[in-house]
Amino acid sequence: MSGNTFGTVFRVTTYGESHGPALGAVIDGCPSGLPLSAADIQKELDRRRPGQSALTTPRKEPDVAVIESGVFEGRTTGAPIAVRIVNENQRPSDYGDTARLFRPGHADRTWFEKYGLRDYRGGGRSSGRETAARVAAGAVAKKLLGLYGIRICAWTESIGPIAAKSGAPENAESNAVRCRDAEAAAEMEAYIQAKAAEKESVGGVVACRADGLPVGWGEPVFDKLDAVLAHAVLSVGGVKGIEFGSGFAASLLCGSENNRPGHSGGVLGGISDGEPLFFRVAVKPTPSVFKTQIFRGEDGTETETALRGRHDPCLCPRIVPVIEAMTAVVLADFALLGRCSRTGKPALQTEEKTLK
Amino acid sequence: MSGNTFGTVFRVTTYGESHGPALGAVIDGCPSGLPLSAADIQKELDRRRPGQSALTTPRKEPDVAVIESGVFEGRTTGAPIAVRIVNENQRPSDYGDTARLFRPGHADRTWFEKYGLRDYRGGGRSSGRETAARVAAGAVAKKLLGLYGIRICAWTESIGPIAAKSGAPENAESNAVRCRDAEAAAEMEAYIQAKAAEKESVGGVVACRADGLPVGWGEPVFDKLDAVLAHAVLSVGGVKGIEFGSGFAASLLCGSENNRPGHSGGVLGGISDGEPLFFRVAVKPTPSVFKTQIFRGEDGTETETALRGRHDPCLCPRIVPVIEAMTAVVLADFALLGRCSRTGKPALQTEEKTLK
Amino acid sequence: MSGNTFGTVFRVTTYGESHGPALGAVIDGCPSGLPLSAADIQKELDRRRPGQSALTTPRKEPDVAVIESGVFEGRTTGAPIAVRIVNENQRPSDYGDTARLFRPGHADRTWFEKYGLRDYRGGGRSSGRETAARVAAGAVAKKLLGLYGIRICAWTESIGPIAAKSGAPENAESNAVRCRDAEAAAEMEAYIQAKAAEKESVGGVVACRADGLPVGWGEPVFDKLDAVLAHAVLSVGGVKGIEFGSGFAASLLCGSENNRPGHSGGVLGGISDGEPLFFRVAVKPTPSVFKTQIFRGEDGTETETALRGRHDPCLCPRIVPVIEAMTAVVLADFALLGRCSRTGKPALQTEEKTLK
Amino acid sequence: MSGNTFGTVFRVTTYGESHGPALGAVIDGCPSGLPLSAADIQKELDRRRPGQSALTTPRKEPDVAVIESGVFEGRTTGAPIAVRIVNENQRPSDYGDTARLFRPGHADRTWFEKYGLRDYRGGGRSSGRETAARVAAGAVAKKLLGLYGIRICAWTESIGPIAAKSGAPENAESNAVRCRDAEAAAEMEAYIQAKAAEKESVGGVVACRADGLPVGWGEPVFDKLDAVLAHAVLSVGGVKGIEFGSGFAASLLCGSENNRPGHSGGVLGGISDGEPLFFRVAVKPTPSVFKTQIFRGEDGTETETALRGRHDPCLCPRIVPVIEAMTAVVLADFALLGRCSRTGKPALQTEEKTLK
Repeated sequence: MSGNTFGTVFRVTTYGESHGPALGAVIDGCPSGLPLSAADIQKELDRRRPGQSALTTPRKEPDVAVIESGVFEGRTTGAPIAVRIVNENQRPSDYGDTARLFRPGHADRTWFEKYGLRDYRGGGRSSGRETAARVAAGAVAKKLLGLYGIRICAWTESIGPIAAKSGAPENAESNAVRCRDAEAAAEMEAYIQAKAAEKESVGGVVACRADGLPVGWGEPVFDKLDAVLAHAVLSVGGVKGIEFGSGFAASLLCGSENNRPGHSGGVLGGISDGEPLFFRVAVKPTPSVFKTQIFRGEDGTETETALRGRHDPCLCPRIVPVIEAMTAVVLADFALLGRCSRTGKPALQTEEKTLK
Repeated sequence: MSGNTFGTVFRVTTYGESHGPALGAVIDGCPSGLPLSAADIQKELDRRRPGQSALTTPRKEPDVAVIESGVFEGRTTGAPIAVRIVNENQRPSDYGDTARLFRPGHADRTWFEKYGLRDYRGGGRSSGRETAARVAAGAVAKKLLGLYGIRICAWTESIGPIAAKSGAPENAESNAVRCRDAEAAAEMEAYIQAKAAEKESVGGVVACRADGLPVGWGEPVFDKLDAVLAHAVLSVGGVKGIEFGSGFAASLLCGSENNRPGHSGGVLGGISDGEPLFFRVAVKPTPSVFKTQIFRGEDGTETETALRGRHDPCLCPRIVPVIEAMTAVVLADFALLGRCSRTGKPALQTEEKTLK
Repeated sequence: MSGNTFGTVFRVTTYGESHGPALGAVIDGCPSGLPLSAADIQKELDRRRPGQSALTTPRKEPDVAVIESGVFEGRTTGAPIAVRIVNENQRPSDYGDTARLFRPGHADRTWFEKYGLRDYRGGGRSSGRETAARVAAGAVAKKLLGLYGIRICAWTESIGPIAAKSGAPENAESNAVRCRDAEAAAEMEAYIQAKAAEKESVGGVVACRADGLPVGWGEPVFDKLDAVLAHAVLSVGGVKGIEFGSGFAASLLCGSENNRPGHSGGVLGGISDGEPLFFRVAVKPTPSVFKTQIFRGEDGTETETALRGRHDPCLCPRIVPVIEAMTAVVLADFALLGRCSRTGKPALQTEEKTLK
Repeated sequence: MSGNTFGTVFRVTTYGESHGPALGAVIDGCPSGLPLSAADIQKELDRRRPGQSALTTPRKEPDVAVIESGVFEGRTTGAPIAVRIVNENQRPSDYGDTARLFRPGHADRTWFEKYGLRDYRGGGRSSGRETAARVAAGAVAKKLLGLYGIRICAWTESIGPIAAKSGAPENAESNAVRCRDAEAAAEMEAYIQAKAAEKESVGGVVACRADGLPVGWGEPVFDKLDAVLAHAVLSVGGVKGIEFGSGFAASLLCGSENNRPGHSGGVLGGISDGEPLFFRVAVKPTPSVFKTQIFRGEDGTETETALRGRHDPCLCPRIVPVIEAMTAVVLADFALLGRCSRTGKPALQTEEKTLK
């Protein structure tokens, strides 16, 4: 398997399976001199951690981040930053009965066909636990972006048929579904719990916004800012779509309308245009449902059975910090790449100003 | 500017501006022994070429593909394949009045801010003409995918409020909007022309389907099949969103519904699952409209004026072959990468079978 | 800092400092199904480990390899293989006096100037300890190359003025300097110890040979087999040169002589030619000597002092497994890339044959 | 074939065969605002061009550089710079008799085995003509490095047994062998011509020096400055070795001697240390000799015959600008990457200063 590294200059490599001894991220290319502590990373991991509310899996994982390299006396050294997270609550026995069956809607069968064998302990590398390493890397990226005055905020915009109507993104952290609209949040919670009681799961839409981007980030043609963000965000398990600015609704507008401020999502021609970056993400219902379903086996036979184990009835609340993390990783890379765009001009006074 | 190369093993590098002497693509990593002629490429370029119908810009570009390397006696040699397309109908004078102004909804200002200067002749590198090189590369990728029995077909699914209701994708080539539904196509044409008469432009939705993919393409975690496709497709100018399978609508389904066949879009856990690959693409209205708009200048002053020149009132008909091309480039790369997944097993009997 | 990842399809990322908590390697792109155990890796680490003989540093590091991901039930899964090595014998206090001074011949000053700060505990990331992670990755690569019937062997060819005269490469493991010639080895040992007694260090030449390569590995033009090997080998600290086949001596031959078998070093036009791969590596004398030398400080002042600590008086014996490891990493990547060269032919029957 | 692109941020892609219609280089990642004209490139191409003296092949190639993109009104725009060179003096008929035979010491057989077919017209992609595109790219890199005050100079240091004794590198352009020592140069010329009269060819050693590098370029661990230079230089056909600073001779020095200024070759721990960059390159005798030799055919049969055609009896004079070009390409990339090393400090005042 290739594809466990992301980025050009600010590069993230992750490893680890849901039921192996540990997960980790190696962040290469972070400039030296950045203040960084394990607490900076822990803060973000705690937002993704299981067991935060009744809406999330009861798997108990403290998800403690340990920095194993790249930081000395509280600052990054320029060496790769390795963050390690021990898996403490492995319960492979949960997978006893159905371990050898391919769970519907999961990557079990595609992995088996691709690799000819499979770590069947709860998804192995394709488990959502893999995203803990992304969040760790994102925390470092966020710290770097802080030098540029950039803030990233994602939130739940809708769950099933219930959509947020009002509220600032920052409000999202105050409720369990991470919705900016407290009233809608209450309805969403009830909806998720009702569906969970039916042994079902639900999907939703997550939105993300980044403020403070200067004009000029993104590389035209293949590595447009929105293209690389789409890559990063769709690489998160469970994400099935993305749209920037007016997105699919832009097809209903006339050109002169769509040219007006507020429709671009902060990107024109693949380069940040000075407006806030804004995109929306389609999140599918968790494929792990406790309802009886038809499972295929390695030999093609079908079995009717039901999953056991510990699963979130809705991915949205915990995917929010993962979307932020991937956004941060992309922006950090473009921040550094942006320093290479022009001759004869120090690219980033802003940065210098902010650091001291 | 970085980001003019795409792919890991099957790698495409493009160059060229709308009003420079030539555009080109260098395709590296194509296996040797593949039958390839300029005609294979020309066929696809002709589908993207301006002037095909009343719906497209009257700029007259024959867009003749010349292969300058990598093919010998009708077969690829393993050396990089360079395809060159001369720009014949440059009319930089069209840009006289407004050349120095930033066209609304275009990349003019973002490029200027990023690079400190700008080729103002019709968009330069950010012009839609850049996609001719993508189509050339995609034609080579399609030829390679033919060995695997893969067919890619994109089409216009909706234009403004008018959506296709029925019809096979293959029908799309028989009408000027490239819609699979001939009846809807007629309405769409009328709609585009009506809006063009109002000096406006319109957007739409393009869909794409690939048949014949084996199970097992795509690299898990960061380089998921859908993630890389999203990168490739959103790197096409004018695209503002993408969704796979049930996409945004998945948020309205329960888990057990969404787990059923037909919802995945052909990708589970980032790996092809044997169903047809299917995704939908949001295309914004052409930002070049002839209506009077407010233009900003390099010094920040605003001017009310109107564009002249030659522009498509709707991007969809000509973006269809570009979406196919980028899809082909991505799949060709995964086809080759897929050969590296397992020890001890020749990956692709299929391919061998088909070649002879 | 970028540049902690090496390879295209078989990719190695390393992290860790000499006096941090741990070092590690993440090996991405290893095909699934390869039998692999911690013992496979330990065997190679033991060859690089300090304290093997009187010739090596007395720092006591067991260098125990723990596999944290990518292996399940004794076989690789296709997921990234993370190997972690805990640093057990950190003695940063050794660096007390001279910690802030730039050691002559070391990377201390260049790192400080590049990054503006420095982990002064024994070289930090630029310490030779970093190579433990390379050896771990190389062990995985060697295991993969075993499927192709490839054996890699490096050895000490000369130390100071003393050169091997005869002996098979395989003999090298039987003496402390890892020289293929037992008689010369005894002289070399005495020479190293004599120089060490003078508080000095010595350099040498290491040779490396790989048998069993099929014709056709290496990518022409920029990624020639010898070019990438040179990259890999010169990336090892202390290496100052490399030559393939007759190397610098080729300048003394006529064309028709040099065209004959035995001069190419196994590479023609950047592609393996079926002869054994052979190259020689210049290893500089360890820069850490206990003689009094002039040290520069961060402020430019000069101090006359002497190093303390634990250092090898000659790098050759322990660099041998590192050279093998980097060779293996390069060959494993080309083995996988080679699968992509042709259409319509399973590239590697050999491999399939060997696996069962 | 992969491997036709080199570099991370400043990236060069080349294409073209010796007897196809054209060769070219696409230079991506060059910052905008750099003054650049075709003449800047032509100047370097003229140094590599055949037919400069009695020592070089009489093939008549004007090697005219045409810039097809990326430059507007005399400055780079940030878009990829495409340079195209038309092949004017193709004489594939020269290869009639021996076309199907594998020339000894050439890549003919290795390419054939790798790809299963071969462009037999004079080496195709493996011909030395490929280096014209490298020189074009190097000219752009040199222009960029000029902003940093960096000058690169390569020269012939020895031919067969004749070595330069004195003379400044800059003198090298005044004689046909490009040797810094005019007296030795005359001997070298006579030697080459005597060997050519015997239908033989000769090898030599080329040295290269770069002045003006700031401390801090190069990425530690895998992408050390010297490691990447070794990669770049060994990727040039005919190069069989490289050594930095005292190189292989360092094995004869004691540590404290080798730690003194003048031995490092300008690189410590993979990072430029402020001394001039200096390395030496082993160049093998041209494999194309007119003597009768044994040629193998595709079917393994052996034929005794002699080459015809037009070949240089010694590669050194014309490889000198190619070595400079590859050095420039590497340094340009590290110049840009170096901008990303630290937080909070504009990396390159020097550059800014020089530009105006």
